[in-house]
Amino acid sequence: MALVVEKYGGTSVGTLDRIDAVADRVARSRGAGDDIVVVVSAMAGETDRLLDLAHNIKLESGDGREEKVARSTATTGVAARELDVLLSTGEQVTIALLVLALHSKGIQAKSYTGAQVPIQTDSIYGKARILDIDPANVRTDLETGKVVVIAGFQGVDVDGNITTLGRGGTDTTAVAMAASLQADECRIYTDVEGVYTADPRIVPNARRLERITAEEMLELASLGAKVLQTRSVEFAGKYHVPLRVLSSFVDGPGTLITHEVGDMEQPLIAGIAYNGDEAKLTIRGVPDQPGVASRIFGPISKAHINVDMIIQNVGLDQTTDLTFTVKRDEYETARSILTQVAEDLGAHDVVGDNTLAKISIVGVGMRSHAGIASTMFEVLANEGINIELISTSEIKVSVGIADKYLELAVRSLHKEFNLDTTPLEDPLEPAES
Amino acid sequence: MALVVEKYGGTSVGTLDRIDAVADRVARSRGAGDDIVVVVSAMAGETDRLLDLAHNIKLESGDGREEKVARSTATTGVAARELDVLLSTGEQVTIALLVLALHSKGIQAKSYTGAQVPIQTDSIYGKARILDIDPANVRTDLETGKVVVIAGFQGVDVDGNITTLGRGGTDTTAVAMAASLQADECRIYTDVEGVYTADPRIVPNARRLERITAEEMLELASLGAKVLQTRSVEFAGKYHVPLRVLSSFVDGPGTLITHEVGDMEQPLIAGIAYNGDEAKLTIRGVPDQPGVASRIFGPISKAHINVDMIIQNVGLDQTTDLTFTVKRDEYETARSILTQVAEDLGAHDVVGDNTLAKISIVGVGMRSHAGIASTMFEVLANEGINIELISTSEIKVSVGIADKYLELAVRSLHKEFNLDTTPLEDPLEPAES
Repeated sequence: MALVVEKYGGTSVGTLDRIDAVADRVARSRGAGDDIVVVVSAMAGETDRLLDLAHNIKLESGDGREEKVARSTATTGVAARELDVLLSTGEQVTIALLVLALHSKGIQAKSYTGAQVPIQTDSIYGKARILDIDPANVRTDLETGKVVVIAGFQGVDVDGNITTLGRGGTDTTAVAMAASLQADECRIYTDVEGVYTADPRIVPNARRLERITAEEMLELASLGAKVLQTRSVEFAGKYHVPLRVLSSFVDGPGTLITHEVGDMEQPLIAGIAYNGDEAKLTIRGVPDQPGVASRIFGPISKAHINVDMIIQNVGLDQTTDLTFTVKRDEYETARSILTQVAEDLGAHDVVGDNTLAKISIVGVGMRSHAGIASTMFEVLANEGINIELISTSEIKVSVGIADKYLELAVRSLHKEFNLDTTPLEDPLEPAES
Repeated sequence: MALVVEKYGGTSVGTLDRIDAVADRVARSRGAGDDIVVVVSAMAGETDRLLDLAHNIKLESGDGREEKVARSTATTGVAARELDVLLSTGEQVTIALLVLALHSKGIQAKSYTGAQVPIQTDSIYGKARILDIDPANVRTDLETGKVVVIAGFQGVDVDGNITTLGRGGTDTTAVAMAASLQADECRIYTDVEGVYTADPRIVPNARRLERITAEEMLELASLGAKVLQTRSVEFAGKYHVPLRVLSSFVDGPGTLITHEVGDMEQPLIAGIAYNGDEAKLTIRGVPDQPGVASRIFGPISKAHINVDMIIQNVGLDQTTDLTFTVKRDEYETARSILTQVAEDLGAHDVVGDNTLAKISIVGVGMRSHAGIASTMFEVLANEGINIELISTSEIKVSVGIADKYLELAVRSLHKEFNLDTTPLEDPLEPAES
């Protein structure tokens, strides 16, 4: 008999019918003899509905200006505290409904808010971090045969204030509960059937991976393969929680995310990630002196523009060219900021391109295998695709290319690295017991 | 500087604009220098929306029958517990929104759920009773100048389970908080401007009472003048909390509900209450023997039919006639139950009338003044109105009459007892300071 934590996100519990379907799924897991802890999000749309209520409260600051409650900036103070009081009701509704549904199927169950567990957090409203979980009460309920249903995304600080972990925090709750209970597995139910070698919409031959290392998963996630919150994968790694991503709509084993590489046979490349909506900006002829980078990226950062890759080439004439990529919808803003910066710095000029795509190959196998980057470059060259940017890390090679070549590049790389044909099924049995 | 508890019900906080208006009103109270605790309900409609969600969860009992979660019967067990988890989110949303609105007006404020106060209750889900309140945290916030906003209707049991006090429990929360904090006044904001001598829709000359005793208020409330929950008035009396009923939409002093009669000048009659939708049933020729009443009222009670007045006349032939009143919409059910009972008991027959109205005059002055009942009967006789039932208590006389005479009767009594013309303004200043 295993102890399993199952997490269902907002889409999986988005309607009463879906909650009923989740109850059926949980009932099957329970029927198989496992102890089950379920962690749920607010029903899809509910968090936005609550935020709209808050935003539509007539807000006037002390000096008479109307202002919005900005979730992104408010992490302390009255508004931030009350937003968490408000938003935490979303999951509270779901836990009650799911327990009612389980109860109607003859499954003993009990709900817990974050505060009831308790899931102790710091006091950074909206972005709280879990400090400690006391699993004693949950464990007692499990021992009496109950399914325990826990509100994700929320906790309580040392003074009893309700906190939220920020959007996507339900994954974190699930992993943290699994760590705290030393669960055998934490299953993250999503709208995909697992982690794939590439996006199946682009590469019809893409395969679901039986398993992937957490490191690879993190690179894939941060590169746009948003199956899991980065934070929850890190958390799972830190506490050695076996994590499985699987579909809440289609039965299947999903993908197991492992943390110990050991001598396990690893495929060379785990998968290919891409973003089709990138843009790049280059500031040319910048006087090469200390503090230049911060004078360039300070104003960009202040405008809340996320910079991805940064590449600097030092020239021979005491000037430097600096290139970076941003999301395409921030290109124009970034460009106008950069143009002003260039003038202030006495740089030569600013050039840009908002038709960029980024492709990354990810695999821990790169550590022990040389030549993977050059294979990638060769594949692209053979297809006549020009590489505009290169950035590498220990288990990843990323390139920037013209977005019109994106699909061709992904398919060619997928084939060249044998992701189409290599039997990816791991010889080991899945950890599920 | 006074400490005031203000309670706003679902209608008063039913929209964002109304929450904003409540914030304005609280800001004015605070601006006058008082310490303010606000107790709020769920936004109008929200509790019903949440109940609908619960009811629409596919509920199948163990034996396969579909069943509804019945709020009225479930006070223990899983469904009852989870309904309270669900329903308590309603007020939690309101407290957050009200604090946000206050904050935007420059008023320092902080929200509390029932569990956060904590408001300790027993574990009778849906109908929990308050056992204890620790006001220390609230008092600390008040001392730092904050307005404290508390979720009404909810509490927490000794095991940390969320409970609700049942519908209307927000009044109870407000009074209990006022008692716990030894507040100078508990103000119940409603959709009426106070307690009137009669329903102004029927008696245009009806006047708002400056004050009324709790006893009179209880009789008027139980007779259909539903300004306040009976339980909260009892609670206020028990803990000597000065209670004031006033409008959340129109400024005005409202009506103060007092608890000590003392030697204060009391009007003879405080007011007239009525119900226009009564019905009466008489079972005639019942063998007069022990246990008959329970054999009659047992089945009626099992059908959840509320019986109001009961009158028994013992005849000379060892049989008795027994008459009672019910709400008109329960008349047919009650009649068919009674017909069966009559057969079982060997009673003579059952007769009924579903066109009854009930009028009551209420006043503590009756204790020291004889002849009030006979004045009432005389007024009705002068109008040619036949009295079908009489029931009296220490401070109340109720009569049943044909409903077509209801308005005439109320107006005549209102005039005869000088409620139209007596200056009802009490010579004492209102308790508000």
